[in-house]
Amino acid sequence: MDNRPIGLFDSGVGGLTVVKQVMKVLPNEKTIYFGDTARVPYGSKTKETVTKFSEQIIRFLLTKDVKAIIIACNTASSNSYDSLVRTFPDIPIFEVITAGVESCIDATKNKRVGIIGTQATVRSGAYELGIKQRMPDIRVFTNPCPLFVPLAEEGWTDNEVAYLTAKSYLDPLLENGVDTIVLGCTHYPLLKRCISKVVGTDVTLVDPAKATAMKMRRFLETNDMLNSDGDGSRTFYVSDHTQSFDTLCERLLKQHYIAEKTDIEKY
Amino acid sequence: MDNRPIGLFDSGVGGLTVVKQVMKVLPNEKTIYFGDTARVPYGSKTKETVTKFSEQIIRFLLTKDVKAIIIACNTASSNSYDSLVRTFPDIPIFEVITAGVESCIDATKNKRVGIIGTQATVRSGAYELGIKQRMPDIRVFTNPCPLFVPLAEEGWTDNEVAYLTAKSYLDPLLENGVDTIVLGCTHYPLLKRCISKVVGTDVTLVDPAKATAMKMRRFLETNDMLNSDGDGSRTFYVSDHTQSFDTLCERLLKQHYIAEKTDIEKY
Repeated sequence: MDNRPIGLFDSGVGGLTVVKQVMKVLPNEKTIYFGDTARVPYGSKTKETVTKFSEQIIRFLLTKDVKAIIIACNTASSNSYDSLVRTFPDIPIFEVITAGVESCIDATKNKRVGIIGTQATVRSGAYELGIKQRMPDIRVFTNPCPLFVPLAEEGWTDNEVAYLTAKSYLDPLLENGVDTIVLGCTHYPLLKRCISKVVGTDVTLVDPAKATAMKMRRFLETNDMLNSDGDGSRTFYVSDHTQSFDTLCERLLKQHYIAEKTDIEKY
Repeated sequence: MDNRPIGLFDSGVGGLTVVKQVMKVLPNEKTIYFGDTARVPYGSKTKETVTKFSEQIIRFLLTKDVKAIIIACNTASSNSYDSLVRTFPDIPIFEVITAGVESCIDATKNKRVGIIGTQATVRSGAYELGIKQRMPDIRVFTNPCPLFVPLAEEGWTDNEVAYLTAKSYLDPLLENGVDTIVLGCTHYPLLKRCISKVVGTDVTLVDPAKATAMKMRRFLETNDMLNSDGDGSRTFYVSDHTQSFDTLCERLLKQHYIAEKTDIEKY
């Protein structure tokens, strides 16, 4: 048994979709979430900058005595995971790409899949590499969707602008005959209804968050690291007190949480 | 005469629209530009965070021996100017709001004006205050346009999504009968064609950049601080090497510049 908390982090508030799944799958675990709301978004920035920001956050989470960390951000997972596990060899680190890759392989029937994400995630090629390593004959089509994060942050998740934007980004994938699309950014589940309207019911949408939470659960079970006292408390830290955190907490987690502000640049 | 450079800074690349005007109005001056591309955007962040980031940038610019600074960012101008002049009393600091206020007062005939900008700029009330102080009977209507910056960064400046977004943001101002709208964000001139389509030819669009450059020129002339050797060199620094800088430099300044990366968090 290990009663220390699980740490999660994201560039901003998108990672709360992962917190939600962890709350469902591991309701007794304590969680500590860090959202980098002062420097959000990561998706338009370079690998070097994303890695540096992620290292600062992990150093911060380690001061909170976490037992494991989930990178609840596709951009940081795809650009910085390999580097982060080398830099922090003593803490188990999980990312969201592997779960997305496995779910997508399970879901496709025609072996033509689409990956959508930020520019940095798509540029990294992490999803393609993960899929090709497991099943080389799957055809992978990708398209970055840089406006999805600001649309989700603005709350324009199901209006005409969102629909036209989604159509512009997703039509090229549909023209390639994909039967599965991975929502390769933790913000994108917020736009799921709009994305579904564009792609129709024949295309499966994969959200890596749930499978990532399940992976963490199996890890804790296997290593006898589950929390035994089960208070399931949630603590939130941000680098800036922006409105998006409050709005999304209420919307996703159905609860008002007060986040503590942290000067992350000091770590 | 003072041959030291003028410093300019912005949250990212929007401030290059101000650099362009300074190049026109003060072609012989050396300029040093800093774009905070690692932490862009500022418009959705708090006053406290924007002020902290701006202080770091001014400390960096001071190491480059600048003779004056232009805050080429409406969010930092409106949220942090007062604090910055107190923190750095020895360097002349210019902001973009005053020029926008004065141009807008000159332009309006019916004394009904609109201000568009980021959430942080609109929330600050800086434009309204500036206008009311000079001409209390002007009616000011405001609307934040958070999607304009990501649209400009994506290069979607004149398509259907941009048009519908502009319509959604600008229709409330038009319904209030404004005859003048201030483009209260240095990115917005990039969307000028699309904004013009929505507002029509009867509404004057005010871009504070040119008037700000003129203010700087008058200041240097009055104080005998113009550059006498006139090489007009431009130096660019960024906090992250993102593509947006290269793209916008070529588009706006018609030239390829190589920006040097700086670890701004150290300042």
